[in-house]
Amino acid sequence: MQSENFIQRIFENDKRAVSRAITIIETGNSNSTCILKDLHKKIGRAYRIGITGPPGAGKSSLTNQLTKYYLALNKKIGIIAVDPTSPFTGGALLGDRVRMSEIGCNDGIFIRSMATRGSLGGLSNKTIDAADVLDAAGYDYIIFETVGVGQSELDIAKVADTTIVVLVPESGDSIQAMKAGLMEIGDFFVLNKCDRPGADNAMVALKTILLMKDHNENSWLPNIIMSVASENKGTKSIADEIERHRLFLDQHGFLKEKREANYKIRIKEIVEHLIKNELWKEERTKNLQDSLAKVADGETSPYEIAESIFLDFKSTIK
Amino acid sequence: MQSENFIQRIFENDKRAVSRAITIIETGNSNSTCILKDLHKKIGRAYRIGITGPPGAGKSSLTNQLTKYYLALNKKIGIIAVDPTSPFTGGALLGDRVRMSEIGCNDGIFIRSMATRGSLGGLSNKTIDAADVLDAAGYDYIIFETVGVGQSELDIAKVADTTIVVLVPESGDSIQAMKAGLMEIGDFFVLNKCDRPGADNAMVALKTILLMKDHNENSWLPNIIMSVASENKGTKSIADEIERHRLFLDQHGFLKEKREANYKIRIKEIVEHLIKNELWKEERTKNLQDSLAKVADGETSPYEIAESIFLDFKSTIK
Repeated sequence: MQSENFIQRIFENDKRAVSRAITIIETGNSNSTCILKDLHKKIGRAYRIGITGPPGAGKSSLTNQLTKYYLALNKKIGIIAVDPTSPFTGGALLGDRVRMSEIGCNDGIFIRSMATRGSLGGLSNKTIDAADVLDAAGYDYIIFETVGVGQSELDIAKVADTTIVVLVPESGDSIQAMKAGLMEIGDFFVLNKCDRPGADNAMVALKTILLMKDHNENSWLPNIIMSVASENKGTKSIADEIERHRLFLDQHGFLKEKREANYKIRIKEIVEHLIKNELWKEERTKNLQDSLAKVADGETSPYEIAESIFLDFKSTIK
Repeated sequence: MQSENFIQRIFENDKRAVSRAITIIETGNSNSTCILKDLHKKIGRAYRIGITGPPGAGKSSLTNQLTKYYLALNKKIGIIAVDPTSPFTGGALLGDRVRMSEIGCNDGIFIRSMATRGSLGGLSNKTIDAADVLDAAGYDYIIFETVGVGQSELDIAKVADTTIVVLVPESGDSIQAMKAGLMEIGDFFVLNKCDRPGADNAMVALKTILLMKDHNENSWLPNIIMSVASENKGTKSIADEIERHRLFLDQHGFLKEKREANYKIRIKEIVEHLIKNELWKEERTKNLQDSLAKVADGETSPYEIAESIFLDFKSTIK
């Protein structure tokens, strides 16, 4: 049972209440929907920043520096590390979190690592729900930082107001990097570790690609900021670019548009989740399981089985 | 209308018929389900190989070399390049296909590039359907090659009998690379470009990670093969390792198990696709759209809207 008191404590940024709310969300406890409904009226003030890019680009360092920068401005920062934890390599994450400990004890900061458990990538609704908790608790900025690779790299653009793609000189080097969806989702790019050889060439290559994108005077042309996050070089320029993008979105009414579009995706996912729960109940899953040998033997096709499950679902749902 | 004659021509590997069948599948034409039902009885003989890894690792070169190797053994090879084409950077793909042209004109080869259009990664059912067409047409090996990054890198393990993860010495260098789901899906690893500095260290690092994985005498311990695909070094070892893995799967009954598991995922996806078509009909999508402003204003929460859509769906489906 969530008391009004509990919700009130979240609104007051009582860290234990905030933490507990996120844990309730993570475990998928049935109370989580109630909490989120109660919190929703205070949501929408936090600015959401996504930081993504290939492994090793320096996303964690950049998150750290940006956090310190905002702290100095008396802002409150929530950090959600989106983490495709695997049972096999899960331990390797320690490195990042150790770096994080430098800033982790400040009162204006809340850090949470959220696993995209089992789903092999994909920024789960739970991650967004956690951000909503932080939003309701009054954090000014919420930073989503992707850890590792996979779908979450790209999904971040669906939940962030400003998406920053961090690259290193080596990334721009290769025609392959340009193929990645990463080039499309960046509201701006940070060329990190730009003290390394090849930075200037990478800059030129990046600019060329970005200029290929259609744009007019009302559209946003992504900038490229050079940085050396490990030495705190470029942090202010990055923060300035975030504000410039925020202002641009505001002035053109795009922020509202973008958030509504994000809600749309999210509501669809929630509906589809509810339906899947109804669809894949024990008996139907068992029937599916029992049909697999026949499919593998060529006796029937996946399409025929799928159709019969669909008909069964339609006839039994009420 | 698909005549029996058309299906027969696919069984006989008439390339025009095969190509047309895949195009019908790609366009999502309603005939595609009929074709796949008709083809299904001849499916299951092709061995499916997935080649994945980070951008620039040399997946295309390795696919080329492996293809030439199999051709010399009089095998027929179907190649499906899974391609997260984007309107923005789509042109960059040319490089790969140019390299492919070296082997593309042989009678025993069928190459098809399939876009995972719009879905931002994710190996679509259409890709698997295309592989089924090639399987029915009598190709001995079907190679799925991922191009670019995203979810498709990991999804490949769901459709391949043997998944090969291609890495370069630089990949093993970083603790970040180990976090990737890539380490879990490889049935074996190819350390390509192993003439580069750091190859030995990368080998040791990779071995250490792989040994961390639980295994017993009945389980498969992924090997690491060194190669220089651009010089055709290591190709035979890779082909041998594929056969060794195939034999292992066969002897333990795992191949049947794996394919059944893959069919299960696929059938689920087809059912869910059918349901989504029913769910997101014009009127319901419009209602969702109309509710977004209220959600963004904090008047109602995504969860409340989702529940009302769910209830509406249940009450109207028949």
